[in-house]
Order: sequence, then C-alpha cells, then structure tokens
Amino acid sequence: MAAKKRKPANESEQPPRAGAAAQSKKTAKKAGKPGGLDKLDNLTVDSIDETATKVFDTIQKRGKPELSFPQRSLANVTYDKKIGHFKLGRGRKERTLTVNTVKSFAQTLKLMALSKEMVLEDDFATKREAYYISKNWGEAKFAEQPESDACMDDIEALFSLRGLSREHLRFYPEEHGGSVNGELIVIDRDPETGESVRIDCTTFASGAYTIPSSVEQLRFETKAKFVLAIETGGMWQRLNAQKFWRNYNCILVAMSGVPTRATRRFIRKLADDNDIPVYAFVDCDPYGISNIYRTLKVGSGNAAHLNQFFCVPQATFLGVTPQDIIDFKLEDATHPLLDVDIKRAKDALKNDPFFQSHKEWRTAIEQLLRMGVRAEQQALAKWGLNFVIDEYLPKKLKETKKFLP
Amino acid sequence: MAAKKRKPANESEQPPRAGAAAQSKKTAKKAGKPGGLDKLDNLTVDSIDETATKVFDTIQKRGKPELSFPQRSLANVTYDKKIGHFKLGRGRKERTLTVNTVKSFAQTLKLMALSKEMVLEDDFATKREAYYISKNWGEAKFAEQPESDACMDDIEALFSLRGLSREHLRFYPEEHGGSVNGELIVIDRDPETGESVRIDCTTFASGAYTIPSSVEQLRFETKAKFVLAIETGGMWQRLNAQKFWRNYNCILVAMSGVPTRATRRFIRKLADDNDIPVYAFVDCDPYGISNIYRTLKVGSGNAAHLNQFFCVPQATFLGVTPQDIIDFKLEDATHPLLDVDIKRAKDALKNDPFFQSHKEWRTAIEQLLRMGVRAEQQALAKWGLNFVIDEYLPKKLKETKKFLP
Repeated sequence: MAAKKRKPANESEQPPRAGAAAQSKKTAKKAGKPGGLDKLDNLTVDSIDETATKVFDTIQKRGKPELSFPQRSLANVTYDKKIGHFKLGRGRKERTLTVNTVKSFAQTLKLMALSKEMVLEDDFATKREAYYISKNWGEAKFAEQPESDACMDDIEALFSLRGLSREHLRFYPEEHGGSVNGELIVIDRDPETGESVRIDCTTFASGAYTIPSSVEQLRFETKAKFVLAIETGGMWQRLNAQKFWRNYNCILVAMSGVPTRATRRFIRKLADDNDIPVYAFVDCDPYGISNIYRTLKVGSGNAAHLNQFFCVPQATFLGVTPQDIIDFKLEDATHPLLDVDIKRAKDALKNDPFFQSHKEWRTAIEQLLRMGVRAEQQALAKWGLNFVIDEYLPKKLKETKKFLP
Repeated sequence: MAAKKRKPANESEQPPRAGAAAQSKKTAKKAGKPGGLDKLDNLTVDSIDETATKVFDTIQKRGKPELSFPQRSLANVTYDKKIGHFKLGRGRKERTLTVNTVKSFAQTLKLMALSKEMVLEDDFATKREAYYISKNWGEAKFAEQPESDACMDDIEALFSLRGLSREHLRFYPEEHGGSVNGELIVIDRDPETGESVRIDCTTFASGAYTIPSSVEQLRFETKAKFVLAIETGGMWQRLNAQKFWRNYNCILVAMSGVPTRATRRFIRKLADDNDIPVYAFVDCDPYGISNIYRTLKVGSGNAAHLNQFFCVPQATFLGVTPQDIIDFKLEDATHPLLDVDIKRAKDALKNDPFFQSHKEWRTAIEQLLRMGVRAEQQALAKWGLNFVIDEYLPKKLKETKKFLP
C-alpha cells in the first residue's frame, strides 16, 4: 500500500524521481491506519462503496444512474432553537448521468474514490491538494479549484446525511485551529505509531497548544468549569500571561476572528464530551456579534450541511455587550458605528433566523444601533491593563445566567 | 505595586468595581518580574530615564527640549549584503517642545512612562491596549489609534538605536506566532513564578506549539540540522502528519502567509542561538518570493528600524523555484500570472534593493515572468499526495548550496 500511495493516479505520465537517498526515506510512515479503521472510518468506506455500487448496478441494468445531493443554498436552511443550529431542509438536486453531465459525474466518483483510498491509507488531502491530484485524472481533471471545491461540497453534503463530516472523508481544511491554554489534557494519537499522546495545556508558559486541522481523533480530560472563547490574540495573551485559567479553573481558546472549522469543532467536542459551558468574549460590534459569535454558536447559513458538526449550541455571550459600555463607563473608549456595521446589524435583525428567534438579542442589537457606537474588548484597558481580569470578568462570571443566548 | 497596576492613570475618574469575590482574585500574579529585571530590562529602563531626564534638565534650564527620532521612511533605508537586512540611514526628525507640539511631546513621554512601568511590573500592552490606556491621560489622550501607533513607532525607532526592540519596551503585537513541530525543546519561563518551563516540540502529535507574541525570553535546546519555514498550513500539516521532522532531524514552522513579527523573531533567535540554517518553502509566485520570503529574510522596507531583530539573514530559498516547475513537470498544475503578480515581480526587479543585489534572484524572477505562470506548493500533489515528501524535498535537500540566496 505504501507503494500505491506514492503512485500517481494516472500511469501514463511518470513523475521525476529523486535518487536512492530519497527512496530510503520512503518509509516515513506505515501505510494504513495504526490499529486499523475505527467505526466512523468503516461507515465512511461503506457509504462510499454503497453509493458507487448503486451507480454501477444501474449502469449494468442499462439505466440512467443518479446522484441526489442536498441543496446547499440558504433557501434550504432552517433554524431550530431546540437543535440549536442551522439545519438542511429537504431540498435536493439530482445529478443524472447524461452526455452533458458525464464529466462532473465522473469527477464526483473519482473524488469519492480518492476519499476511500485516503481512509484506507490513513492519509488526507486539503482542498488545494485534491484539486491538484485531479490533474492526473486525464479527461476528468478539474480546470479550476472552485470546480473541485464545489464537487467536494456536494459530496460532503451527501454524506453529512449519514452523520459524516468532510474530515471523516479525509478532506482537511488548510487552516489549523486557534491557540489553547488551561486546565485541559488533550489526548491525540501519534500519526505514525497510533499510540495515544497526552498534551497538558497547562505547560506552555507564554506559548500555547495549536488545535490541529482535524480534531475527530481527539479525546479530553478536564475538570474545567468553562471554556472561554476569545476573539483577539491580544486579549487571550493577557489572560494567559496572568494565568487567568488557573485562578478560574477554565480553558482559554483564542479564536483570532471568525473561528475556523477546526476551532469550532474542537470547542464543540470539548463541550459535548465533558459537558462544560462555553462563554464567548468578543468585541461589542455587529461583526463580533453576528459574524464571530453567531458562527461559533449556530454555524454559517451557506454551509448548513456541516453545522451539525461545526457549531457550539451550548455557547453563550459573556460580552462585551452594549449594556457593558454603560455599566463599565466605556463611552469615551468607543468608536462610532460605520455604515457597514449598521448594515450588518440591520441584516441580523431583518434576515437572520438566529437573532429573530431570540428576543434578548434583538433588544441588544437595537440598543447598539441606538447608541451608535462599538467597543473593542481592549477598551476595558481604559481602566488599567488588568481591569479586565480584576474587575470585568469576575463581575460578569458571577451572573452567567444573564449572558445573552 | 500590584495596587498601582490596577489604578487608572488618571485619578479623577473612578472605574466601576466588582464585588469582594473579584478582590480575592487580584493576586493572580505577583507584581514585578520574578527573579528581578534582566540586563535588557535594565537597559530599557535606563534608556527611558536618560531620555526623560535630558528633557527635564533642558526645561529646568529654560531651554527648548528636543527629541530626535530616526526617519522611518523608505528613503532612509539601505540594504547591505553583509549585514543581511534593510538598515536605517542617518536621517532624523527632530521634535522640539513648542506650543504646537506640546500635545504629541507629552504623549511621547507618557507612552515612555507606560513602557517603564510595564518593565518594572513585568506587564505588557498591545498597540490597541496602549491606545485605550491613553483615554485616561486627560488632555494628552490619543484621539485615534493610528496616532498612538505612530507615536509608538517613533519610540521604537528611537530605542532601536540602542539595540532595543518594541518587545523590550513591553509593547507586544496582537498576533502570536506560527505553529512549530520538530526536534526542538523551547525553554520559556512561567509568567507567574519565573520558573523555567521546558516545551518539547516532538510531543504534539497532530497539533503543534504556538509561538508566543513575544519570544525574547525563550531559550532553545536542539540538535536539528535545519529549520523549514513553510508558507501554508496545509503543507505544514502534511509534513507533520508524516513526521518529516523526525526523519530529517529538523524543525517545521508554519508561517501561514507573511510571517508575523513573533514568527520571524522566533526563527531568527532559533537560528542565531543554535547556528542552524533556515530553508524557506513557499509558493512559486511573486507574492511568495517578494512578500513572504523577502520579509522573512531581510525584513520590510517601511519598518527598517526593527529589521535588525525581525529578519532572518541566514534564510535561503528551497523552493518552489521557477526551474522546479520545469524539473518536476508541474506545467499543467500552474496558473497564469495575474496582472498584480506581474506588477509585483517587476517592482521587485526595479525597486527592491534586496533582489537588485542578488543576480540569481533577478534571473529567477525574469524566468518566472517569461514562463508567465505561478505554481503553489501543493501543485506537487499532482504526482501523489506524498510526492513532496518522498521525492521533491529529498531531491532539493541534497543540494542546499544551490538554494536561491
């Protein structure tokens, strides 16, 4: 299998080879997953086989094979307070094998085959890599990456109906996750040996643990009381330098803006597996509220098929709230709302099913619009660099029930 | 001192206080640096005192106090192959205390005072925080952050003449550094206790070590043969998953685009302290070459005063080179150069002292322009996901002498 892995998909064209020195390095990794496939790996392989077999049988019967994908458009999205995330509707788009669709049909099957191969060999591909792999598919090659991305999204949507995410299909995101410190032990497995590895997130001093791009294999040990998801690296840095996580027995995660898939999935698994609440601490502006927080909590509308994995329904909003600007006398440390802020806030009120279903949020956003200002989390530094640690967070954390939903 | 730290700079306005619960948490951290100030801390404090005293004495003598800052414009920048980075020229701008300059003069001194206070109390501030701190300076408050940023740049430039960086002044960047795996032990100090902490970068499985935003306090233990600085998180992920660093006894650093200050400083210290070479592995396009690599190697022109700390003169360019596109048959995995690529490449040839002083680079960039295409590092996946590990890197690493300068 190791040999197979290094073989270009298309025999006809041969790659330039390095010398003997390189060959000797080729055993970098045992082929196949150490310890064999797990339950979800098998479900993935079976789902792919089943789909492919159905197509094959139909062709055998001289019928027109068909693949039915969920529609990924916003129009096919619903929000259910109880489920707590945007959900795919029943909308489907059929792709039937015809003279016109033969190429995209073939590409879909080739991409599924690549996915199966990667599961069997315990490998993965980024979107970019999957696109380039196709360059050796002859006629079926993708001309541009947006084509392969769309094809991958369809496959992801299809298998999401079976509870499989893109990561289970071994298509990993380019970006890894955010930085983590605190009362947490992450249990990962060594990619080579499969042995489990314990990572103690209290041991990094001024540094941190970087969340890997795929977190499906992670397990956790923690007695932490909550996860604090922080918007800016600067604020995360301060809380870590002051060992806030030690004094409040919590876990700090730096999102650095809108959290990546890996960051959201990591927080979700962490909160699910250990039944701990998640508090979001972001700027008080429409971007922090309706982009960063909303994406963390319910996922994003145009990727509804993956929200079931990549959202954190148990998250609540610690701050900075519009009311905090008044309660903590931050008025002279605010900035006027820009047109883009106002537009974003009004869109949230008018079009976003999440905010529409939570009266507290509508009230808060309307208050923000009335005040006409926004405040960054660092605005608290007006009262001293560590005011946020000595006054703001302690006060807020005494009333977690009052956090915005 | 702990109390002082929590006191707003301006007595007149009092901050809202949290309850007793908060007070009890206030000892989160001992005031002052555990183990006292080090040599550079003292140099920083002395430099600030000296500057302030000179101003004070001049005023006592009823003279016009003056501060002389290096000009930070490109016009005041030179490149010296031997030194290996962009360098500040002799250009200076004087700021004399007059009725018109009194405010900016006062702001400069207040910011220096904040810096001294932070060194003494072992604290730090991001640019954002420093701006908000000023909101309690009464008349001397900054109206907008760009004002405080510019003021901070002047101070940084001034003290850079004494070999001090912004981090020594305790102004830390918002962003932390990239992700690190490999044959390296990082020795940091616990921010609370000052005890040294050992971080073994071979123990993160699929995760990684995040470089802190300030790395001045770090020390290293390593027998690694080289540092591989990688442009994309995706490629870094693959090399880590295959434990490339183990098989090649090296250290992997993910830059994720143009490397942050912290990432550049980390690589520089690592390479200096342990005398190991740094190889850059980025996309073959004008952005990867003239933005990412050039910034890593010689720093950025418009921040010349800090390049002496934040560049990596020992870095060389492993690839992807224009010649690699031919040698590794990547033609059909390339993209046409966009206008912005062509403009960037021509600017590099025409205006960039670094590329002008290296014939090999001029030849390579001209070749790229003739070919009219660019190639991402993932283009190598055309030959199989792990072709980069099994063929490309081994072949390149056999001829490090041929790397572009």
